[in-house]
Amino acid sequence: MLTFYNGQHSQHAGKVEFFRGELLPCFEKPQRVDFVLAELQRRGLGEIVTPQGVPLMSLEKIHSPRYLHFLRHAWQEWVALDPANAERDALPAVWPIRSLRHDKEPDNFCAKLGLYSMDSGTPLTAGTWLAAKTGADCAINAAHALNCGERATFVLSRPPGHHAGHDFFGGYCFLNNAALAAQHLLDDGARRVAILDIDYHHGNGTQSIFYQRSDVLFVSIHANPATDFPFYLGYADETGAGEGAGWNLNLPLAQGSSAAQWFAALESACLRIAAARPDALVISLGVDTFAGDPISHFLLQTSDYLRIGERIAQLGLPTVFIFEGGYAVNEVGVNAVNVLEGFETW
Amino acid sequence: MLTFYNGQHSQHAGKVEFFRGELLPCFEKPQRVDFVLAELQRRGLGEIVTPQGVPLMSLEKIHSPRYLHFLRHAWQEWVALDPANAERDALPAVWPIRSLRHDKEPDNFCAKLGLYSMDSGTPLTAGTWLAAKTGADCAINAAHALNCGERATFVLSRPPGHHAGHDFFGGYCFLNNAALAAQHLLDDGARRVAILDIDYHHGNGTQSIFYQRSDVLFVSIHANPATDFPFYLGYADETGAGEGAGWNLNLPLAQGSSAAQWFAALESACLRIAAARPDALVISLGVDTFAGDPISHFLLQTSDYLRIGERIAQLGLPTVFIFEGGYAVNEVGVNAVNVLEGFETW
Repeated sequence: MLTFYNGQHSQHAGKVEFFRGELLPCFEKPQRVDFVLAELQRRGLGEIVTPQGVPLMSLEKIHSPRYLHFLRHAWQEWVALDPANAERDALPAVWPIRSLRHDKEPDNFCAKLGLYSMDSGTPLTAGTWLAAKTGADCAINAAHALNCGERATFVLSRPPGHHAGHDFFGGYCFLNNAALAAQHLLDDGARRVAILDIDYHHGNGTQSIFYQRSDVLFVSIHANPATDFPFYLGYADETGAGEGAGWNLNLPLAQGSSAAQWFAALESACLRIAAARPDALVISLGVDTFAGDPISHFLLQTSDYLRIGERIAQLGLPTVFIFEGGYAVNEVGVNAVNVLEGFETW
Repeated sequence: MLTFYNGQHSQHAGKVEFFRGELLPCFEKPQRVDFVLAELQRRGLGEIVTPQGVPLMSLEKIHSPRYLHFLRHAWQEWVALDPANAERDALPAVWPIRSLRHDKEPDNFCAKLGLYSMDSGTPLTAGTWLAAKTGADCAINAAHALNCGERATFVLSRPPGHHAGHDFFGGYCFLNNAALAAQHLLDDGARRVAILDIDYHHGNGTQSIFYQRSDVLFVSIHANPATDFPFYLGYADETGAGEGAGWNLNLPLAQGSSAAQWFAALESACLRIAAARPDALVISLGVDTFAGDPISHFLLQTSDYLRIGERIAQLGLPTVFIFEGGYAVNEVGVNAVNVLEGFETW
């Protein structure tokens, strides 16, 4: 399997996230990708390449121009506020919730941070734009490679993407790599693309981007949002709207769900995907479903990840795997690569 | 002037607010009210009384029942998460911005905190509900006293209220005292009430509560929201909607505005209020327009506050003054009481 590796990922390395009234060390660390890379190389699972840069305009089909402009310039604006900010991650503190406007971009930088975000757990740092943009390059390159004959490709990148919306960051995500890959597949000729999101957390960004569209089927298996991030999206009654009605399937599971329960949901997801007869598949590959994950509550074991790859392979679709969450640093490499190996060897 | 004093205000004493990526000591301190009380007593400006408690139902005309339920129980839920939280202010960290839902209340307490708030600068503490509810008692008692023959009353309370919306807290505010007073005046027989908000910051909560109603005219003089909190509301093009069309007037001023510029806006505000021929007036009295305020940028001097009271008195309306912002602790007493004395002696 051809892997597109984001060599700039470690440029994004947040110091702290704000949670429960405290500043805590970040869970979303560079080591996550380093462990996956080491495991890929150890198993010799195919070539590892660097992406070609894509023009910024390619991102505008998924993200708003004003959001992209904000992201590119955010760090400079943050440091311009106070030179001491160079040593401090940028975190928002005020948000345009209901009754407040989001049509105007305020001049105040802290207000812009809030306008373009959904939480204060996603630090924006000096290297965030470079890392996120290179990840988007990986996603678009990986989608394009399917058209050049690859059966499957893997995007090994961070920060992750599936919580990022049309014009906001959050949940450790800035640019929605899965959405960018799906859009590129459509632009390259696919009539319909399915996205299967198997991260522990609901991919609210991906869902919302395609919620009114029928050319992308979004299917997600995740923790019940009533108890787990992102809390405000991912319920079973969200089935799409307008032209997208019927093209969104959420399969939320309770905290503590077993592997058997999880695989039953995977079966439902795969049946729905097969019924949609898509031309290609994008997998949002989070491995925070692992029993040892420090911030999640499902009970999958390392060997289960091989079975996931096998089941996805049975769909028989050109597939882009995109690395999302997974915070048990030591096991994240083995678990992620198990999915790829299960797919390859089926 | 009869003052309704919130003797429970110091039960709400936040330790920290989150701003620009750091936890900072709170600007909204109990001393703010202590200094006003001392100045009132020093000048002998009338009786200072304690309010009678109002039934919770009286608050439901302004705030949603589920928000009130949340506020009443929030501290217990916070401490139930972790006993160590008893020593830590509750601050939200994730918000249901655009594309996310706010129709469902999640089970997760941190998600509820975000659902019912707009920023992470407003700590919720063990005594917040008691202090805020007693403030609401003061506001409703003060409105009621006008019907019993008082020409004017003063609500001396904190936390302040004008940023609190129908179902969210923020900007140091939990219950919207000005909105509660205006609603009570209507319920007591007024056909129309005007609210004049002269705090440095736009009263987004008050505006949004009455935005579609014509029985309450909302007029506000404040810093341009493009540069100052609350950032996402308070622009001049917000003039009301539906039945409320034409019943909202925002007069934003640039940072650094002089007293002359501020009084020109006050003149416009008073002309609009007079034209509306209301039966009563509610003043959201912030004194953070003072040149020495630590977080604001207008240039009013202590003597200007006498003139403000005089101009308001010329409207000749039964008036409830409600204490809102003002963070220059040493001067806040003299400035606030100057407004009241200017009103009384005109």
